[in-house]
Amino acid sequence: MSDYSDYMECVRKMKPLVHHITNYVTVNDCANICICSGGSPVMTDELKDLDDMVSISNAVVLNMGTLNERTVESMMHAGIAAKKKGVPVVFDAVGAGATAYRKNVAKLIIDRVKPDIVKGNEGEISFLSGIEGGVRGVDSASSNDNIGRDVKALAKKLGCIVASTGKTDYVSDGDVLYELSNGDDMEGNVSGTGCMVTSVIGSYVGANGAKAESVAVAISAFNIAAEHASKNCRGPGSFKVALFDELFSLKLGELDSEIRIQKL
Amino acid sequence: MSDYSDYMECVRKMKPLVHHITNYVTVNDCANICICSGGSPVMTDELKDLDDMVSISNAVVLNMGTLNERTVESMMHAGIAAKKKGVPVVFDAVGAGATAYRKNVAKLIIDRVKPDIVKGNEGEISFLSGIEGGVRGVDSASSNDNIGRDVKALAKKLGCIVASTGKTDYVSDGDVLYELSNGDDMEGNVSGTGCMVTSVIGSYVGANGAKAESVAVAISAFNIAAEHASKNCRGPGSFKVALFDELFSLKLGELDSEIRIQKL
Amino acid sequence: MSDYSDYMECVRKMKPLVHHITNYVTVNDCANICICSGGSPVMTDELKDLDDMVSISNAVVLNMGTLNERTVESMMHAGIAAKKKGVPVVFDAVGAGATAYRKNVAKLIIDRVKPDIVKGNEGEISFLSGIEGGVRGVDSASSNDNIGRDVKALAKKLGCIVASTGKTDYVSDGDVLYELSNGDDMEGNVSGTGCMVTSVIGSYVGANGAKAESVAVAISAFNIAAEHASKNCRGPGSFKVALFDELFSLKLGELDSEIRIQKL
Repeated sequence: MSDYSDYMECVRKMKPLVHHITNYVTVNDCANICICSGGSPVMTDELKDLDDMVSISNAVVLNMGTLNERTVESMMHAGIAAKKKGVPVVFDAVGAGATAYRKNVAKLIIDRVKPDIVKGNEGEISFLSGIEGGVRGVDSASSNDNIGRDVKALAKKLGCIVASTGKTDYVSDGDVLYELSNGDDMEGNVSGTGCMVTSVIGSYVGANGAKAESVAVAISAFNIAAEHASKNCRGPGSFKVALFDELFSLKLGELDSEIRIQKL
Repeated sequence: MSDYSDYMECVRKMKPLVHHITNYVTVNDCANICICSGGSPVMTDELKDLDDMVSISNAVVLNMGTLNERTVESMMHAGIAAKKKGVPVVFDAVGAGATAYRKNVAKLIIDRVKPDIVKGNEGEISFLSGIEGGVRGVDSASSNDNIGRDVKALAKKLGCIVASTGKTDYVSDGDVLYELSNGDDMEGNVSGTGCMVTSVIGSYVGANGAKAESVAVAISAFNIAAEHASKNCRGPGSFKVALFDELFSLKLGELDSEIRIQKL
Repeated sequence: MSDYSDYMECVRKMKPLVHHITNYVTVNDCANICICSGGSPVMTDELKDLDDMVSISNAVVLNMGTLNERTVESMMHAGIAAKKKGVPVVFDAVGAGATAYRKNVAKLIIDRVKPDIVKGNEGEISFLSGIEGGVRGVDSASSNDNIGRDVKALAKKLGCIVASTGKTDYVSDGDVLYELSNGDDMEGNVSGTGCMVTSVIGSYVGANGAKAESVAVAISAFNIAAEHASKNCRGPGSFKVALFDELFSLKLGELDSEIRIQKL
């Protein structure tokens, strides 16, 4: 268990450029957490800007939090361009189950872009499991006891890495399934912690390639920082500030000794 | 005076879903203050997303801070859909008096959507009072001594709740007029405190219905949190961080004992 | 060296209205740092809103961080309207060298709007120096030893003030060249510090007019605040919070005694 921190070290040394097309609610936090994870964020969604930007990027993050017709087109274009060049694509299916439009966009991006990593919270991944090949017909999963199984099945079905975040996080490439137990309840009291995790994943796969283990360590690093942050905070405001500080300052040895990861 | 906190308790228990179409300047703060007030924020302005999103929401917040033609259409659509379903609509007329376009959009939303709550700062409400039935012809009110009277008259004219924020806040449904005296000058040194108040109002009317008293308590809870936050801050940056912490941690008893509310 | 703080005092007394058309990543930080610098920010990019808004503004900030076709048109329109009225225009050429589209937009804004101040980081200004009259053909300048010379030459060529930020900052009007040595490495770990500096420049030229010295003092005030902020921070999160506090509280005497400015 001594090499999980190799992933973190690699991110910090390489400073991968992570191109985001993301929502306007949490975009600033995504940029800053990307920096604190060791990456270098860039955000642009103008079609004319995308080919050039993708060509210098090490990873592309697509987040449909505040999607609109223009940015959906941009996400499709950037995602497809990235795949052609072998740049890892991370897709965060924010609110996939909340509206029909989001369901359709999520399906479109998954089918056409074929992201390397599909990420969502438990409800979103459960929903995608339902519409993609009928693993189970779940609309929103406040209590999906089989989320780990769903993550693995969806990863196998889609032929990519799937990551589900929640009380317990799961990551699978369809073969191995990682169960992750770090994190703090305070994360649920801050808008955009899910989006921030996705940006951290962007940094990790940008530097380490699209491997399930690198995704698992990205999530764990963020969650360990959250555990540290919650110790000295007075509420959601100071927790968020500390989260940036703690991820930025997280030591390699701390990651290795505090990570709670299980290969199932 | 022991039951003002019932409104707060009700918000925290219900966690109302508050759908926002708001500006890109302060949207993250709106999301986070909504959570800290006890609500659950969601932001989307894509036309195709709105009917589904409104149908699962407990309140809709329309904020024209960085309006554009596309989002004005979305605000109209979401507002009208919400009214049809009986979902309370809160409208923040940001910058209503600053440009002719904003004046027209404010008038359009007020006339067509018929929001349950029209909210603005003293200048904006004074301006709306001027254009809506000529209560008084004020362009911008650095010193509108009759703002309380204007709020009540505008509420009566529009048949809705009107809220004006400033050194002293006023809320009226055209019948009762509440004068609110909590708050701290530091609020004026942070961008978006007005928008944040509107999001807190969204949580309160989402859980408690569109009543003048519930709007008054929402504003007061925010302002009491601001008073607490200003005690330990070193400037606008740390004040804003503390504001989230303090609203999140505000106790029922503190609200009841510290609220300064007068029914006129 | 006792009168640099006159610029700061003037901003605080006048509270200039600084109209921004800027990116959605760092816009909230721009608004708040503008307030902390003594200015009053307003953000709008809707074409129909611009003439009225520009007409009441003391400075206009154009920042192409997340440009798109609609906002580029808005930046052109607002910039040209401002110049007609004698309102100082500050242009931040974010990412000018990263894509062909950005290069074209930067060139278009510089040629057509003729901003009073062109600002960028070392790489961006080096890039603009290359495309504008072939001072040198630099794409991105991780190490441009001649950046000071380039800033002055570009200022002379464009007939405006040019400001380059980095380890050392340079400001020139084509005649005088200021070399500025305040600042802290932690600035590089926060997204948008460059954008924030531009907003502070907006406040300073809004109150003091478009003079090279007023731009130099704006940058220095921000960087001195950063030096103060870094002393008590625990990482990028708490550094950013402190940055707002420190600029807001910076004393006239501190500015005068701590500023490291050299006229070359």
